[in-house]
Amino acid sequence: MTDTSTTAPAGSGRPIAPSHGALRPLGLDEVRITGGFWAGWQRVNATALIEHCAEWVERIGWAGNFDAAVEGRMPEAHTGKAFADSDVYKLMEAMAWEIGRTGDAAMDARFRALTARIARVQEPDGYLNTNFGRPGQRPRYSDLEWGHELYSYGHLLQAAIARVRTTGEDEFVGIARRVADHVCEAFGPDGIQRVDGHPEIELALAEWSRCTGDPRYLDQARLFVERRGHGVLADIEFGRAYFQDDVPVRDARVLRGHAVRALYLTAGAIDVAVEDEDAELLEALRGQVATTIARRTYLTGGMGAHHEGESFGLDHELPPDRAYSETCAGVAAVMVGHRLLLATGEESYADLVERTLYNVVATSPATDGRSFFYTNTLHQREPGAEPPLDVASPRASSSLRAPWFEVSCCPTNVARTFASLGAYLATATDDGVQVHQWASSEIATALADGSRVRLRVQTDYPRSGAIRVTIDESRAEPWSLSLRIPAWATGATVAIAGAPPVAATPGAHVVRRAFAPGDVIEVSLPVAPRWTWPDPRVDAVRGAVAVERGPLVMALESVDLGSSVNDVVVRPDAGLVDHATEADGEVEATIVPLHGGADAWPYADAPVERAGEPARRVRLIPYYRWAERGPSTMRVWLPLASDVSR
Amino acid sequence: MTDTSTTAPAGSGRPIAPSHGALRPLGLDEVRITGGFWAGWQRVNATALIEHCAEWVERIGWAGNFDAAVEGRMPEAHTGKAFADSDVYKLMEAMAWEIGRTGDAAMDARFRALTARIARVQEPDGYLNTNFGRPGQRPRYSDLEWGHELYSYGHLLQAAIARVRTTGEDEFVGIARRVADHVCEAFGPDGIQRVDGHPEIELALAEWSRCTGDPRYLDQARLFVERRGHGVLADIEFGRAYFQDDVPVRDARVLRGHAVRALYLTAGAIDVAVEDEDAELLEALRGQVATTIARRTYLTGGMGAHHEGESFGLDHELPPDRAYSETCAGVAAVMVGHRLLLATGEESYADLVERTLYNVVATSPATDGRSFFYTNTLHQREPGAEPPLDVASPRASSSLRAPWFEVSCCPTNVARTFASLGAYLATATDDGVQVHQWASSEIATALADGSRVRLRVQTDYPRSGAIRVTIDESRAEPWSLSLRIPAWATGATVAIAGAPPVAATPGAHVVRRAFAPGDVIEVSLPVAPRWTWPDPRVDAVRGAVAVERGPLVMALESVDLGSSVNDVVVRPDAGLVDHATEADGEVEATIVPLHGGADAWPYADAPVERAGEPARRVRLIPYYRWAERGPSTMRVWLPLASDVSR
Repeated sequence: MTDTSTTAPAGSGRPIAPSHGALRPLGLDEVRITGGFWAGWQRVNATALIEHCAEWVERIGWAGNFDAAVEGRMPEAHTGKAFADSDVYKLMEAMAWEIGRTGDAAMDARFRALTARIARVQEPDGYLNTNFGRPGQRPRYSDLEWGHELYSYGHLLQAAIARVRTTGEDEFVGIARRVADHVCEAFGPDGIQRVDGHPEIELALAEWSRCTGDPRYLDQARLFVERRGHGVLADIEFGRAYFQDDVPVRDARVLRGHAVRALYLTAGAIDVAVEDEDAELLEALRGQVATTIARRTYLTGGMGAHHEGESFGLDHELPPDRAYSETCAGVAAVMVGHRLLLATGEESYADLVERTLYNVVATSPATDGRSFFYTNTLHQREPGAEPPLDVASPRASSSLRAPWFEVSCCPTNVARTFASLGAYLATATDDGVQVHQWASSEIATALADGSRVRLRVQTDYPRSGAIRVTIDESRAEPWSLSLRIPAWATGATVAIAGAPPVAATPGAHVVRRAFAPGDVIEVSLPVAPRWTWPDPRVDAVRGAVAVERGPLVMALESVDLGSSVNDVVVRPDAGLVDHATEADGEVEATIVPLHGGADAWPYADAPVERAGEPARRVRLIPYYRWAERGPSTMRVWLPLASDVSR
Repeated sequence: MTDTSTTAPAGSGRPIAPSHGALRPLGLDEVRITGGFWAGWQRVNATALIEHCAEWVERIGWAGNFDAAVEGRMPEAHTGKAFADSDVYKLMEAMAWEIGRTGDAAMDARFRALTARIARVQEPDGYLNTNFGRPGQRPRYSDLEWGHELYSYGHLLQAAIARVRTTGEDEFVGIARRVADHVCEAFGPDGIQRVDGHPEIELALAEWSRCTGDPRYLDQARLFVERRGHGVLADIEFGRAYFQDDVPVRDARVLRGHAVRALYLTAGAIDVAVEDEDAELLEALRGQVATTIARRTYLTGGMGAHHEGESFGLDHELPPDRAYSETCAGVAAVMVGHRLLLATGEESYADLVERTLYNVVATSPATDGRSFFYTNTLHQREPGAEPPLDVASPRASSSLRAPWFEVSCCPTNVARTFASLGAYLATATDDGVQVHQWASSEIATALADGSRVRLRVQTDYPRSGAIRVTIDESRAEPWSLSLRIPAWATGATVAIAGAPPVAATPGAHVVRRAFAPGDVIEVSLPVAPRWTWPDPRVDAVRGAVAVERGPLVMALESVDLGSSVNDVVVRPDAGLVDHATEADGEVEATIVPLHGGADAWPYADAPVERAGEPARRVRLIPYYRWAERGPSTMRVWLPLASDVSR
């Protein structure tokens, strides 16, 4: 691994800044998204989504918990679940990145006002939680399984990291420092020998260590990672696998249990492995992630196949209609993928990040940024009920987007991801720049010799696969520009400075030359729609196919079909028609609507052939835009017509 | 409907005794199972299963709750969930039927001893619950959503009904009378205008009304049925559909929510509809059950497709690997099917009863009657962990049978069903006898004119489809003997008194003649193994087939395969081989073991063909006997080889 520690100072605007790794992350001051799909989401985030979350944490009382705690109104006045504090912190993390990105002064004032309310709650020894320790409340750390105290600290620390790396030291950062010190004191080698039921503190402490340069926090993160898996938490109805306390992190074969918990833990363990240069641990984690991607991941990149316990299913257990695929698990998978990309330089991790960003993270919010999916099903069998607009939705259902949830981890998680999205676009090495995510953007950084390189990406991706990279500043000597060709992009080409296009195979396509300002590199990715076939071991989608277009998973929605998506088969032999230029990447496929069939015992002594109407073309839309036209049914996996060979 | 009220006196040994209906139930004194499959289970029940349950309710403290309640040791000493009392009552119902069936004096002494302990807990106004109302406990009826007070009464009343119809009036029956009166007082027209979160009181009160002849209890049952569905219970995380408080009973389209709750409610509502001669309500319920059977029932007869909320899935949502198919839902489906059979005389309901008895109820207990499945999956993907033998299993998993559960409704439910199994075999009308379930048995009853008919069934069913019915007593005039030909029994024949066999089509095959003692009717049911194809709307098993043999669903278990059942396809074109005479209905099918396949992104741009080993024959066993040879994988639905046309 390259030693990159000197290139990760505080104030760089980087969500994570490993001191080792194949690639060096660029900060938000080095990468700016300037247009297209993700710029649109950053605009919605800045103008609506963050504001929406800020309104809700007040309206529902989760910010007010901090006031109630100092005003002696607890426990009666506490609102929300045990982890209500954490959503205020996730919101503040989103704000911190956004303030750093745009310099929004009103948002900064709001951040400081929230800080002042939180500061009053912190106890002299650093402890900070609105839900424990006061008269009538349970004692602190008395319910590590479900109390989420360290989990909440983790999000507080992540917000402080965003703050210190954008605005710098302030009152909030001071709160975080006292919290981090308290955790090391209370849970250190001589402290409580247990862990939190919900991982998150691990990655936060590791990053806090990077941020402050103090190895004590990394030591504590390592302790938490190593302690887990030895049954240090109580057994619960879902089993200890629910919070990954069944098998030590370095011994596990695959991710299991609660998906968000498993992925946050993995992210934190990667951070520890990277800082420790612990190759064995990193290999173990890479293996677990590889198996999870191969056997426990939906086509959308979604993870979590059980509503019960919000957990991963077993290998190849991926029911589309019961996909949990929590939005937060998508955010966490992006965090894991980005960390492994930085550690290894393997573009397959950027593929996962791209897939998950488009088909999980961007699927959650409505276009206006004011309602959200909590879960992200791949098959909606019945039109969902309209969720209430004025109260938190009680259930994490997969029907229509809701403005807020009783457990509302997802909206603020989307907000902080959108605000820090630039960090996922590109990285650098001593001798080059790597572009991982395609969006209109400006990338500027210094190479190891101090020379500046600056480049501009212009594209309408993913609607179009035409990408134009212009070198705006370059040193005289050669350097390497690495361009990610996604795994699906068979037939991609790259043309340099007017030369004829050359074939580019999936992975990192590296161009090394002495670039001159004004040089143009044209990347062409074949985003035309394609049929996608599942591994036959995925029982739940046997005999079905999906359609993808570029990085987008497509979906059939009843609004376009005119009838229920449950009663249809598809004819891949009739091809696909691309309508990319007309509207947001739409596609037409040929389907046959079927008649309902008899309502009798559904198991017979011969195959049942269902009567169909004539085949016709129907529109498929990007999955991320479904359920925007009222209650509907939807499916990603389309059953094959029975005469189509498998 | 025929008025059958005069034929349903107390003391008849009948679990239910409707005053109207197409068919008149026979009591346990009129039907005796004498040999074969079900006699075996009755023997296990008498010698082990009931004893096992009796030991566990003591060991785990649920019987002891009654002592603790009068000794002032509550709330600290309470063990088990809110509904722990109910399992003591279900055990007592099993004991009561068993005492009636066999006259077991030791069991009767045990029943009376339990009665004495329970009697001391009853309050002067009839209220009886170990979990509510004492200092430190919550007030009675303060948590109807989850408190299960009326649910527990329901089981107490069912035990009392068993008692009064076998042994007669005693101290336990007196307790029940005071409970029933108290419920009418507390929840009557001037009482609490709500219902219990778990239906059960409805069917119990309706039967108690039949048992006592007092219409007040039926009135109360009707009130409970009519109140539900109007949002009289609080909204909960699972939604009000969980306890069927979302839609009024007579307006619902299909069963939904928690499967056991939905089925108990349906049973109670049928009882009310029958007693009230409320044809509209009965039709509504028949429609709901028909839709449930057509769209929400597993091949095994199992109901409940979600672990989350233990609930029905949506239409055609029947994942084999996530089947909940709770044993208690099987028991409840038998209760519903039997009630509809009695009300309508339609043998399709007896088909459902048979399917569910063999493939759900008899699947739950181990051969020795000392461990149980709570859920009954149709696809076990990974070998389950061995459950603890000395403590209650915390989770309702689908791995191996466990001796007891923290929620242990199933073992006692199996016990009471086995003890009263004779009641499901045959019925009578004014002018004949109907045999619904095939087992070696003796049936004796009186027709409307007072004449006695007596017949004997001899069979090795379901191993063999040869059934011999001998008339042992008959009147001189003709009467009708109805023989159920199961829906799957294409090609069945019936031969009467030495005459050549005649074809018998599925349904009720009625023979009307002047039988003479010694007349023999030979029924031949083609139990040879057959392939079964799913409705193409059941997405989760598309491209797979199952094997059935007579009423038995067959299963492939890894123990027989020598490798995981996840990696195999089947060749229906290679036929099936029956080994009925060798062992318990085993079958051989031809399968192809597949190699695991690549561990990479599981979605590709072309169909993936997996490499297979040579085709070979492998044993399938009856589903009800799986998991008896240690941890294993198992599947009912077998993926088709890709070159087999669907």
